[in-house]
Amino acid sequence: MDYVYAPGKNHLFVPGPVNIPEPVLRAMNRNNEDYRSPAIPALTKTLLEDVKKIFKSTTGTPFMIPTTGTGAWESALTNTLSPGDRIVSFLIGQFSLLWIDQQQRLNFNVDVVESEWGQGANLDVLESKLAEDGGHTIKAICIVHNETATGVTNDLSKVRFLLDKYKHPALLLVDGVSSICALDFRMDEWGVDVALTGSQKALSLPTGIGIICASPKALEASKTSTSVKVFFDWKDYLKFYKLGTYWPYTPSIQLLYGLRAALDLLFEEGIDNVIARHSRLGKATRLAVEAWGLKNCTQKEEWYSDTVTAVLVPSYIDSSEIVRRAWKRYNLSLGLGLNKVAGKVFRIGHLGNLNELQLLGCLAGVEMILKDVGYPVKLGSGVAAASAYLQNTIPLIPSRI
Amino acid sequence: MDYVYAPGKNHLFVPGPVNIPEPVLRAMNRNNEDYRSPAIPALTKTLLEDVKKIFKSTTGTPFMIPTTGTGAWESALTNTLSPGDRIVSFLIGQFSLLWIDQQQRLNFNVDVVESEWGQGANLDVLESKLAEDGGHTIKAICIVHNETATGVTNDLSKVRFLLDKYKHPALLLVDGVSSICALDFRMDEWGVDVALTGSQKALSLPTGIGIICASPKALEASKTSTSVKVFFDWKDYLKFYKLGTYWPYTPSIQLLYGLRAALDLLFEEGIDNVIARHSRLGKATRLAVEAWGLKNCTQKEEWYSDTVTAVLVPSYIDSSEIVRRAWKRYNLSLGLGLNKVAGKVFRIGHLGNLNELQLLGCLAGVEMILKDVGYPVKLGSGVAAASAYLQNTIPLIPSRI
Amino acid sequence: MDYVYAPGKNHLFVPGPVNIPEPVLRAMNRNNEDYRSPAIPALTKTLLEDVKKIFKSTTGTPFMIPTTGTGAWESALTNTLSPGDRIVSFLIGQFSLLWIDQQQRLNFNVDVVESEWGQGANLDVLESKLAEDGGHTIKAICIVHNETATGVTNDLSKVRFLLDKYKHPALLLVDGVSSICALDFRMDEWGVDVALTGSQKALSLPTGIGIICASPKALEASKTSTSVKVFFDWKDYLKFYKLGTYWPYTPSIQLLYGLRAALDLLFEEGIDNVIARHSRLGKATRLAVEAWGLKNCTQKEEWYSDTVTAVLVPSYIDSSEIVRRAWKRYNLSLGLGLNKVAGKVFRIGHLGNLNELQLLGCLAGVEMILKDVGYPVKLGSGVAAASAYLQNTIPLIPSRI
Amino acid sequence: MDYVYAPGKNHLFVPGPVNIPEPVLRAMNRNNEDYRSPAIPALTKTLLEDVKKIFKSTTGTPFMIPTTGTGAWESALTNTLSPGDRIVSFLIGQFSLLWIDQQQRLNFNVDVVESEWGQGANLDVLESKLAEDGGHTIKAICIVHNETATGVTNDLSKVRFLLDKYKHPALLLVDGVSSICALDFRMDEWGVDVALTGSQKALSLPTGIGIICASPKALEASKTSTSVKVFFDWKDYLKFYKLGTYWPYTPSIQLLYGLRAALDLLFEEGIDNVIARHSRLGKATRLAVEAWGLKNCTQKEEWYSDTVTAVLVPSYIDSSEIVRRAWKRYNLSLGLGLNKVAGKVFRIGHLGNLNELQLLGCLAGVEMILKDVGYPVKLGSGVAAASAYLQNTIPLIPSRI
Repeated sequence: MDYVYAPGKNHLFVPGPVNIPEPVLRAMNRNNEDYRSPAIPALTKTLLEDVKKIFKSTTGTPFMIPTTGTGAWESALTNTLSPGDRIVSFLIGQFSLLWIDQQQRLNFNVDVVESEWGQGANLDVLESKLAEDGGHTIKAICIVHNETATGVTNDLSKVRFLLDKYKHPALLLVDGVSSICALDFRMDEWGVDVALTGSQKALSLPTGIGIICASPKALEASKTSTSVKVFFDWKDYLKFYKLGTYWPYTPSIQLLYGLRAALDLLFEEGIDNVIARHSRLGKATRLAVEAWGLKNCTQKEEWYSDTVTAVLVPSYIDSSEIVRRAWKRYNLSLGLGLNKVAGKVFRIGHLGNLNELQLLGCLAGVEMILKDVGYPVKLGSGVAAASAYLQNTIPLIPSRI
Repeated sequence: MDYVYAPGKNHLFVPGPVNIPEPVLRAMNRNNEDYRSPAIPALTKTLLEDVKKIFKSTTGTPFMIPTTGTGAWESALTNTLSPGDRIVSFLIGQFSLLWIDQQQRLNFNVDVVESEWGQGANLDVLESKLAEDGGHTIKAICIVHNETATGVTNDLSKVRFLLDKYKHPALLLVDGVSSICALDFRMDEWGVDVALTGSQKALSLPTGIGIICASPKALEASKTSTSVKVFFDWKDYLKFYKLGTYWPYTPSIQLLYGLRAALDLLFEEGIDNVIARHSRLGKATRLAVEAWGLKNCTQKEEWYSDTVTAVLVPSYIDSSEIVRRAWKRYNLSLGLGLNKVAGKVFRIGHLGNLNELQLLGCLAGVEMILKDVGYPVKLGSGVAAASAYLQNTIPLIPSRI
Repeated sequence: MDYVYAPGKNHLFVPGPVNIPEPVLRAMNRNNEDYRSPAIPALTKTLLEDVKKIFKSTTGTPFMIPTTGTGAWESALTNTLSPGDRIVSFLIGQFSLLWIDQQQRLNFNVDVVESEWGQGANLDVLESKLAEDGGHTIKAICIVHNETATGVTNDLSKVRFLLDKYKHPALLLVDGVSSICALDFRMDEWGVDVALTGSQKALSLPTGIGIICASPKALEASKTSTSVKVFFDWKDYLKFYKLGTYWPYTPSIQLLYGLRAALDLLFEEGIDNVIARHSRLGKATRLAVEAWGLKNCTQKEEWYSDTVTAVLVPSYIDSSEIVRRAWKRYNLSLGLGLNKVAGKVFRIGHLGNLNELQLLGCLAGVEMILKDVGYPVKLGSGVAAASAYLQNTIPLIPSRI
Repeated sequence: MDYVYAPGKNHLFVPGPVNIPEPVLRAMNRNNEDYRSPAIPALTKTLLEDVKKIFKSTTGTPFMIPTTGTGAWESALTNTLSPGDRIVSFLIGQFSLLWIDQQQRLNFNVDVVESEWGQGANLDVLESKLAEDGGHTIKAICIVHNETATGVTNDLSKVRFLLDKYKHPALLLVDGVSSICALDFRMDEWGVDVALTGSQKALSLPTGIGIICASPKALEASKTSTSVKVFFDWKDYLKFYKLGTYWPYTPSIQLLYGLRAALDLLFEEGIDNVIARHSRLGKATRLAVEAWGLKNCTQKEEWYSDTVTAVLVPSYIDSSEIVRRAWKRYNLSLGLGLNKVAGKVFRIGHLGNLNELQLLGCLAGVEMILKDVGYPVKLGSGVAAASAYLQNTIPLIPSRI
């Protein structure tokens, strides 16, 4: 028997790992295979071609590395930069903090641009730095598209605008871990040089593939990067791409077939419809939060995230108790507040293979928990606000019309 | 790709087949095995012992026949009765109707006691018949514990009381298809002679096992029954029980392991806790219906069902449209109104491996659908009413305290 | 942990249930669904159309009943015949015996034509009976295509020839349980009126669907049959076929998707290639038996079965010990000798989703077991004989050329 | 449908990834979970405790990193050594070559001790180096326990003996990728400082966990290592071990449950029994090779590997053709010859969840392929030789006695 059995389905609303669709679970339910047989390269080839679509890139080169988002970060940095390189990086929450920590430990020279948690990247500071950097000492801009800890989405088109304005050649490295396949993301249009995500996020797979897409400019940069790396070295991949065997070391057979199924589902729904669905889920969540009389950790509408909402609780409540209670009484998994916002926010992840009624069940659960912990919520109020919006906006399911 | 893919989880709220717990899906994910090896009889032995617990019987003999509920009905009848035998049977909805149809086609002499759909079995008529039957021409009373079409639960203890009052030896045959493992059911205490259910109902398995439990009196009756049967003949099972090989023909290996897992989960939760959970789900649903200003098809509280609620819609609405819309827009599966109540009711099944937040998601969906079809529901009202009750009554999850 | 764990794969060589292909396991790894939604009828429609192909019938009407082969037998008999009807039935082994037992218990008047176990149906006797039956008192001929207990395949085209020769209108009812999808079977060409199989045989699914195909003549006969039946009544199916909802009661969702996958695999391989593969497996097995110096229970080559081989052991050996030892030492599942041939034969089932190297592993195992039990086999001899044949005949795998 | 469907089971005899046991597939067939809930740390704790047993270590500290064997190598090196450190490394085949390549690219100063492919590590050279290194400039000895490309097992106890003889403090870093859980491996007894394997090898899981065990001395060394690393940094793990949350970044939920199941199976069989089983499989394979008149790539018995056998083919045969044919005609997956032995050897992997009859099926297949490609093998000869040995040595299955 499992460790902590509870009747019914676990309501998984952490911002990753997220719910896996049944067809993907089915696709992964298989024995190992020889990855050097003709079958796996043939499969890999379709994946490399199709995975670019989730980045909206036609010119990029994808890498599907057996690692996590943290490894994908490392791959992005060590393949394009050299020790001592100056980079500008935005600290706006726990995940950007961790990436900056990695950047520093990898011996890059990081200009940290900090914002209050709940705000987006301070692009005014970026502009100043770019304006002052006529000598192009800045080698890269590192930014999270969506900060998972605070539910803040940064405006990447603005970053590109500034780089272009100052004709600055810095690479643009983007953490799309909690955005890609869920938020509007346009690698080619926005001139992103490296974008990355993890399989357990909006792709709705198990953890295990760090998916990276590199622009031609990033690939060019990788030729001269002197950062030490082997496992994460793109060169080994590129060598095997040429050979047509694709893998410098053993991939997970199950995840490859799972990724195939996941992409098929995304394409069947349509990437733009997937993004629209996340937009509905995000908006509905925020309407519920408002109806409860609570505040969004995200301070301005322009930064609202459609994949995760961090909810501020009144000071007399410990948000960790909300998360514990969700799990212990309602079989609901919510995200904790991390680091600076520990105890102050709880997070509702609304990304990946999720529909509106699942979200409404979660919101109904949150209402009961809020009451449990002494917050005077009006039961049903959040669901009502969310439903009023959703009932107007949910489209018919195309395959069932 | 599946036929009718939609993002997120299908919300399955028909009164069967119901949601299968993940541990059960896992247990069934296996190759076939030789059912004559020592492993399958050993497994079967534990199942036969443990399956009696879901009937609350220690004296009964269970049969796990590879069939559906319809086959289980046929097994109950043809093993205990002989053609021409007089039986009393209650017509209160579509499933009791189908069972009566079967009884008649199997050449029994059926006294049909009809009630309006939405009412329980008319036990006053039963009492009259018993009172008049000093000669014991009535060989069996056939009754559904829970009529799935109307959401009506009959009072079996009352039936036993009447049989005892008149010292009547008629067999008591009970369809427990939508009650056993969900409603309070006491085979031994209530003197039920044959009780039966199907694996796809509250046991939360796939369809494929008709589970029957026969009292010693029923077994005795089976020795003299002259009804023609082979596949459903208990004698063949009893012969193989004695041999210790248990199976007169090939069982489903997967369902046996699945049943083992399903029973383990039920016992881990505790049968009485399972029943209490269904009681919460039923009550919460009825509170929502009331808040919406709609009527329960079940006419009196004494018959309210904790496994399925049939909701009457205003005459200007076609309830089938509600069910269609649920599926086409919200990935929600509701039960149609059947036969006499077609177009007039839709049904919410709330049985099996289900928790409160799943139900609240469903109720939120029903509210939006009601609005879709022109009923002036106040969004959030049903969820609020249900939540207010649930927030007071949901226990902590024992494995997580 | 499972009851009787052993390292590596269980070598499943009983003549059913057989090995399930991974794609079929995957297809069945799913939650329940509402069988009244549009998805399941749409799926069912494709199944009913395609399942006819395994019978090589274009004019037949298929029924996919949630039951076993025993239930499929009962369905064939009770839908086409009436109590007291005279039928000719061939007793050539345990399964024909069981069918005859069923025929008798269902009150048909059975002319049993018995052969020694190891011989085919005595068609000379059939001819005499037909010749003498100018009054057409014989209503049906019942015959197993392949007797699973002895590994004997009957010549159905000969039966048809005799019926035609005598212009006899008797129905031809065929048990194809261990033949269909494995042996050459031609329902329409041979004028079979009812053919049937079980899902756990050469279709390589779990147990749970009795698949029956009825000729127009059989359907016509069903209109006047007075046998008592409800669960097995084709009329209920035909009624729901007309409604387009297809199911008079709840099917197994998992088996429907599994059947879809199983048929897809069979069609991808090509039914004739499937039959050729079974022919190779059968021949290879017989060559091994010969090399071991043992006798096939089947007495003449014309009756040799390509799905199961019953091997006679010397009188100083108990064949049950071979089966026990296979399981206890080699994780190999062989078939027991049944009834008259108990202790005298063991059976190698070589049907379903199986390839040549799997069979050779089994044969190597049997050699070791024979040595274990004191038979002076030359190790490797059977494998050598089988390999010599197979190495000449195995085709390239079309999808891999 | 899958890309390259073939009937029956794929015979997977590459030396990794290997066959996954059904109970492990079942354990992994699950949705994602919140890895910050109490359930995953509780599970992780049992894994960290139990995984040490496969190393035969009580004093080591294990790390289960979401990566492959290549990443595990990198973790072992970068956590214990600093750039410029002198290490002695043995080049005896493709995998030791790749590790040395990594060592060099990570800027270590590698004394490469090369042997002819087919020979073990030259420990005489090691002795000379140790004898000459009074100043302890050698910081580590890097050695593969089992070279997967040539099927050569090195004598680790001898390495320890030499280190002790010269009282040399160099760290002993061991690649146990194709040995641990299959060959006799004694981390504590042999004074191994870092040992590592990958989940897809003898543990019989999918690819995705690099499992490393570090001795107290290795942990001590990690405190002063200046190699640049973040993803592979043990310090991050140790920090989360102390917190009791265990994971610095997201693990694969599925692999954790899979590892639990895999360890349970290994412990149920008994690690020593697992090793004995591999010994039988290795010996049987070598006997077959000998019977075919072919040579083992491994030049001396002391180096024979019980997990993989590389078979030399006559010069007129291209061993790649054997591998291709195995896959195209027999659904058998064999290992290619790599690099220096490309075209000259094919490899039979006989590790992981595998039993004797599976191996015999493979050997029978190899015989047919040898004949296909023009080698005058006597069909059955290898199987006979292997069987003769196995029939004497296979024990009864303990759970079935």
